[in-house]
Amino acid sequence: MTDTSLSSAPRTPLTLLGTGAMGTALGRAWLAAGHPLTVWNRTPERTAALTAEGAVAAGSAAEAVAANRLVVACLLDDASVGAALEGADLAGRDLVNLTTGTPADGRARAAWAEERGARFVDGGIMAVPPMIGAPGAFVLYSGDPDLFQEHRDTLAVPAGTEYVGADPGLAALHDVALLSGMYGMFGGITQAFALLRGTDVAPKGFAALLVPWLNAMADAAHRTAERLESGDYTTGVVSNLAMQVAGTDTLLRTAAEQGVSPELLSPFLDLMRRRLADGHDAEDTTGLVHLLHTR
Amino acid sequence: MTDTSLSSAPRTPLTLLGTGAMGTALGRAWLAAGHPLTVWNRTPERTAALTAEGAVAAGSAAEAVAANRLVVACLLDDASVGAALEGADLAGRDLVNLTTGTPADGRARAAWAEERGARFVDGGIMAVPPMIGAPGAFVLYSGDPDLFQEHRDTLAVPAGTEYVGADPGLAALHDVALLSGMYGMFGGITQAFALLRGTDVAPKGFAALLVPWLNAMADAAHRTAERLESGDYTTGVVSNLAMQVAGTDTLLRTAAEQGVSPELLSPFLDLMRRRLADGHDAEDTTGLVHLLHTR
Ligand SMILES: NC(=O)c1ccc[n+]([C@@H]2O[C@H](COP(=O)([O-])OP(=O)(O)OC[C@H]3O[C@@H](n4cnc5c(N)ncnc54)[C@H](OP(=O)(O)O)[C@@H]3O)[C@@H](O)[C@H]2O)c1
Ligand SMILES: NC(=O)c1ccc[n+]([C@@H]2O[C@H](COP(=O)([O-])OP(=O)(O)OC[C@H]3O[C@@H](n4cnc5c(N)ncnc54)[C@H](OP(=O)(O)O)[C@@H]3O)[C@@H](O)[C@H]2O)c1
Repeated sequence: MTDTSLSSAPRTPLTLLGTGAMGTALGRAWLAAGHPLTVWNRTPERTAALTAEGAVAAGSAAEAVAANRLVVACLLDDASVGAALEGADLAGRDLVNLTTGTPADGRARAAWAEERGARFVDGGIMAVPPMIGAPGAFVLYSGDPDLFQEHRDTLAVPAGTEYVGADPGLAALHDVALLSGMYGMFGGITQAFALLRGTDVAPKGFAALLVPWLNAMADAAHRTAERLESGDYTTGVVSNLAMQVAGTDTLLRTAAEQGVSPELLSPFLDLMRRRLADGHDAEDTTGLVHLLHTR
Repeated sequence: MTDTSLSSAPRTPLTLLGTGAMGTALGRAWLAAGHPLTVWNRTPERTAALTAEGAVAAGSAAEAVAANRLVVACLLDDASVGAALEGADLAGRDLVNLTTGTPADGRARAAWAEERGARFVDGGIMAVPPMIGAPGAFVLYSGDPDLFQEHRDTLAVPAGTEYVGADPGLAALHDVALLSGMYGMFGGITQAFALLRGTDVAPKGFAALLVPWLNAMADAAHRTAERLESGDYTTGVVSNLAMQVAGTDTLLRTAAEQGVSPELLSPFLDLMRRRLADGHDAEDTTGLVHLLHTR
């Protein structure tokens, strides 16, 4: 049993479907905060960590759903959400889906849940399990605004909440956009360390320069956003495409000198060249966004 | 004439070769700090902004070099440094080359300067002209440590100084590595905004999520550096390659749903898949550095 004697108000009871790595971290945070928790997992043994901390294991997903109005799913993928909830009665439930998917997955799952009489919110977890319950972690939410408002405090227990709109596809869209930004940056970091390999430059010392540099340069995203909103890609540009494309030669020659493939760098440099060739020499890199659209 | 009455010690006089956008910004900072400045530019008219603020224009690069022991070059590219200094007597000069080039350019130019009796330091400017003289701007320096120590205070006037070693190629190597990291991040930012185009998501609101997210995730570079130094790519990994590669499907499906080309994302995802296929499922992304080496 969880000791709730220190808390003044009773905590909302909830159901958690999926006690994998992430589900277990989430469940642990809710238990620690005094929320009565019902759990279910396809492989029953994997609920042991949470039942040891006070969770009640249900014999089936349907039973788990019947136990509480608020139901959180954190399963492998969208298909496993459908599979797990096959025989459950969702009428009157508030389903919060923290399973990673695409925007279309989120919208289809929302329609599916509403057909079954449930309110629905989709979520995208911007954290790894060890970050759950610690500052910095947050979850993007989209979908039914009333559900979100009503359960906001409960949802805020494992991680910060960031509600991004009523369209249930928006959490996934923001999630993937943030991850895409991150992987681009990881590509840049990989290229940078590859250039230094085989030299005397100590990676840790270099990282001490690279991290603040990336942090400072990330602010360019604010300017890109302003330009996308205003439609003005040239006023106040300090590094125009003509200058930047001229500078790419040094990047590519250095990669060649160091014996490093330019494969992580080339697609962006190619986009800059294409935009420049289209006559946009006075722009910054904002207009490259247009070149990525395939329709 | 520059008013130096507020300064206690006389400022080191110096020569600046090249008064383009960057040279002019540098020269202005030295003049404002009270350094007597001799300038030269291939197109003489372009020295007007600095002579109006107290600089003395020399009739030739050779005259400009003869005027002061400390000579700073900020020209288009390495070839223009050779061209400009063709007939100058460099014996006994301290040449600081702030012209962008590759590590090999820096080393060759150092040998060339030493043959002519000059001490040499190469520099890489990590700023755009409007940032010169403001906090945040810095210049990477490498080469003769005595030259750097002796002129450190003068060099620190327009921008912070970061000395990275006696090998004159190291400033360019660090410069290009930092820029490569930045362009990777810019690629990620471009991909992220492309995903949101044609949706109701306001770019500025999204940037307010993206920038802190990138700032938090940039810390991964510290862990990559530690792993590269220790050689241990698996201990303490929270997001292993097997999990990350499984997650790439959502990134690519979302790009397809939004009508966005995956060209900026694919090379990094492909590297993750290659490393995973090589049996490194328990690693994080550190080992990808190895896959970029072409020899
Ligand atoms: N871990 C992270 O770093 C992280 C970060 C952000 C988001 N997420 C997201 O969080 C979700 C869960 O991730 P995780 O790390 O907890 O994964 P995990 O440890 O692999 O757990 C997967 C869970 O899904 C269940 N499952 C798989 N197929 C199923 C099916 N057909 N029917 C019913 N249940 C099924 C598994 O049950 P069994 O135990 O029976 O296999 C298990 O509970 C994923 O969508 C993931 O993308 C994870
Ligand atoms: N601007 C930036 O944002 C920035 C940032 C970091 C680093 N840098 C580096 O700073 C250096 C200067 O850049 P900048 O922005 O000042 O460029 P810029 O405005 O185009 O100026 C180029 C300078 O090089 C001179 N030059 C070109 N070819 C020459 C030759 N063959 N012989 C003699 N002089 C020649 C030009 O003289 P003329 O006036 O006669 O053409 C001019 O003084 C470059 O290496 C650049 O990569 C610039």
